[in-house]
Amino acid sequence: MDFCQIVKKRQSTRKYDASRQVEDEKLQSILEAARLAPSACNGQPYFMSVCRGQSAKDVAKACMGMGMNSFAADAPVLIVISEEDYVKSAAVGSKLKNNDYRSIDIGILAAYITAQACELGLSTCILGWLDDKKIRQICSLDHPVRLVITLGYEEAGDKLRDKKRKNMDKLVKYV
Amino acid sequence: MDFCQIVKKRQSTRKYDASRQVEDEKLQSILEAARLAPSACNGQPYFMSVCRGQSAKDVAKACMGMGMNSFAADAPVLIVISEEDYVKSAAVGSKLKNNDYRSIDIGILAAYITAQACELGLSTCILGWLDDKKIRQICSLDHPVRLVITLGYEEAGDKLRDKKRKNMDKLVKYV
Repeated sequence: MDFCQIVKKRQSTRKYDASRQVEDEKLQSILEAARLAPSACNGQPYFMSVCRGQSAKDVAKACMGMGMNSFAADAPVLIVISEEDYVKSAAVGSKLKNNDYRSIDIGILAAYITAQACELGLSTCILGWLDDKKIRQICSLDHPVRLVITLGYEEAGDKLRDKKRKNMDKLVKYV
Repeated sequence: MDFCQIVKKRQSTRKYDASRQVEDEKLQSILEAARLAPSACNGQPYFMSVCRGQSAKDVAKACMGMGMNSFAADAPVLIVISEEDYVKSAAVGSKLKNNDYRSIDIGILAAYITAQACELGLSTCILGWLDDKKIRQICSLDHPVRLVITLGYEEAGDKLRDKKRKNMDKLVKYV
């Protein structure tokens, strides 16, 4: 699949087929794409906790509240992305330039995970609404949790939606 | 190209063929991929200023200093990524959850730009070391500049390097 096809096909999937597991080789392929993602000073300041079975149910529950993310309970895999320490050069650069490189790196990682999942016929949703404290407990993590990505096969009949985005002239100018 | 091929082929390119321009249809295709990137609450809290000619030279200069990024002067196109305001729902979520969604969104955007460029045979480098104030002046921007992406054709003979990354067991665990 060309990347532009992935871009068009990838969407936030909120209906999963709870009875269909993610094949291990596909999961490994997604994690390998994530591993090769670029990051500031190649610091790779993140960690992925792959949750299946009961831990997936528990993490899903920790992403709910205020009517949000109840669909996550049906996703067979949840990938929890937490922070790791900066490497020294990125820490210094971040401070000198007042720029949060680590969050940017975590965004790139999430893009790689969701693109490779799409390539393999799997569906994802990136969740930022989460209970950091609870998920840290479930996954035994010392660092803040930043994102959870649901991963699985979409329910049969879930359709590709039109993407609503800003017009190009609200997003781009030529200087 | 499969996404896993893009992942392997994309690298930070620091040698550009200054004599070779980026075709306009390729630039448009990259910007369109970026436009379709996902973001928290679909807020798209970013803006891209495409710099060519003198403005590219000026922005490149504003990314130099302390021996950094001198290669940027040879890139025919520089894409400046600056912040835009959050949509209300993402602003509230970010505050309640103490999570910097906007920086994550900017990371996803950068991943889309660099992946689509790679798909089209172009090379990129994501720069976070930049002079925010100077670039805001050059591009007449009111919001902070977060990244600059160099875009162009690599110099003939620039080779694909091995990617040095953490081993999988330092990046992933199963819960």
